[in-house]
Amino acid sequence: MPNPLGAQVDLKSVSVIKVDDAVTEASDLVAREEPLEIRLWSKTDGATPKSISITMRTPGDDFELAAGFLFTENIIQHPSQIAGIRFCGKDGDEKNIVKVELAGDFLPDISRLERNFYTTSSCGVCGKTSIDALSVGACKISPDEFKIESDTVHSIPDALRMRQNAFESTGGLHAAGLFDADGMLLMIREDVGRHNAVDKLIGGFFLAGKTPLSRSILALSGRASFELIQKAVVAGIPVVTAVGAPSSLAIEAAAEFGVTLLGFVRDQRFNIYTHPERINTSVKR
Amino acid sequence: MPNPLGAQVDLKSVSVIKVDDAVTEASDLVAREEPLEIRLWSKTDGATPKSISITMRTPGDDFELAAGFLFTENIIQHPSQIAGIRFCGKDGDEKNIVKVELAGDFLPDISRLERNFYTTSSCGVCGKTSIDALSVGACKISPDEFKIESDTVHSIPDALRMRQNAFESTGGLHAAGLFDADGMLLMIREDVGRHNAVDKLIGGFFLAGKTPLSRSILALSGRASFELIQKAVVAGIPVVTAVGAPSSLAIEAAAEFGVTLLGFVRDQRFNIYTHPERINTSVKR
Repeated sequence: MPNPLGAQVDLKSVSVIKVDDAVTEASDLVAREEPLEIRLWSKTDGATPKSISITMRTPGDDFELAAGFLFTENIIQHPSQIAGIRFCGKDGDEKNIVKVELAGDFLPDISRLERNFYTTSSCGVCGKTSIDALSVGACKISPDEFKIESDTVHSIPDALRMRQNAFESTGGLHAAGLFDADGMLLMIREDVGRHNAVDKLIGGFFLAGKTPLSRSILALSGRASFELIQKAVVAGIPVVTAVGAPSSLAIEAAAEFGVTLLGFVRDQRFNIYTHPERINTSVKR
Repeated sequence: MPNPLGAQVDLKSVSVIKVDDAVTEASDLVAREEPLEIRLWSKTDGATPKSISITMRTPGDDFELAAGFLFTENIIQHPSQIAGIRFCGKDGDEKNIVKVELAGDFLPDISRLERNFYTTSSCGVCGKTSIDALSVGACKISPDEFKIESDTVHSIPDALRMRQNAFESTGGLHAAGLFDADGMLLMIREDVGRHNAVDKLIGGFFLAGKTPLSRSILALSGRASFELIQKAVVAGIPVVTAVGAPSSLAIEAAAEFGVTLLGFVRDQRFNIYTHPERINTSVKR
């Protein structure tokens, strides 16, 4: 078993502009986010390995992730049902695809999977594939004249929080808010799933014929992952602010698709990860 | 459009035992978590409605959620492609299934979906179905002699945090830790996805032949949702503690399957939601 008290986690160093009393350039560590595809393979079966799950994860402890997934989803019940686990590729160099070989004549029932699993968002089998898949479906957000003041950014968390009634009552909900350039809240939606809060918000404007949302800011009460940036891109939203941290893939997608991504937006400070040209920092650089 | 500044969110009142300097019974509000199935239906096509997604969400703004999902996944591009959205059932009383009727002869390409969507966990089409599905795959955790002191519970968040190296560096990772009855940390895993952190942890013990984990505590750095309780149940873990809030369905599943569920475990206080018999509160009641 890998070191039980030291999780393998893959971090990435990124350049960031830190805005507080001053504006400084720095480097920062973010958690890597990459898709992992789990394939099941059986000698007895003779068939090609069957892809049964793709999940967005932080690389590290991937064999344990695959085994834990198969076990907790009741596809396998005992470690002896596994003959081996390895990465795909001739030299095991495809680190985003794990192949689980089943032992002997054990053939689990995976028909149940298709019925019982639920989908959350799109992706491919590597970060690059995920970003490529997004390119097919969405236009880049072009450079524009949309600018917001850093004071507006500072005001967003409180404005969101003030309207986040259900969070105050339960502490259990993610919120997504849409703001205009002056920091006026246009809509707020809440959900146990942050992707749902964003879908509810964008869906409301979409049904009203009000997309693309070109001159607006999407504010997230939590962290920013790839799928949330994807949704912003499709809706044409040029600025995304998160109270929490962004993932590596969220930053890469924002950079590629022209989105200004701000993280750790709280307590009169924030980090700019991509496309800083839309932020007017009111302090001297 | 429903009130843009008032999210529709469905809360549920639950009984809870609050433990801090005293032990008191109270009622508390939690966010409701229920699956939503989205079905696409086309008159032109003539076929039966096709289920394209099941997501765990908080009921409310469900038509917007369905529209936003279809739009941000690039299945539809314009509101005119939708002829109508309604709940299933004769009187629209199946509130966990939304049917989106497509307009005219518009037939979106959904073949892409099966390739590009990734799965995260199992569920049915209502909370009850989700819990029933779990019954097939997992045994209830039987009443046992496993007891932990409330002081042990209080010590868990710091013990987890101390080893949560990557969170300290990035702020972007969820952690899952397994503790024994004395509050000794046995394993910690971290990931951008909380279900992945739990799978990595349980998978490590599973591959080492050490499941079921009958005399242990699963500690979560964030909130507790249904799918995390499901994973604990399959692994035979009798106690789950969360730094954040539990959802309604997490509480229902924990109650049904014999799991002691604690939430808001921080700052020398916590709430007991289910099966309090395993917690020795050191203060007088």
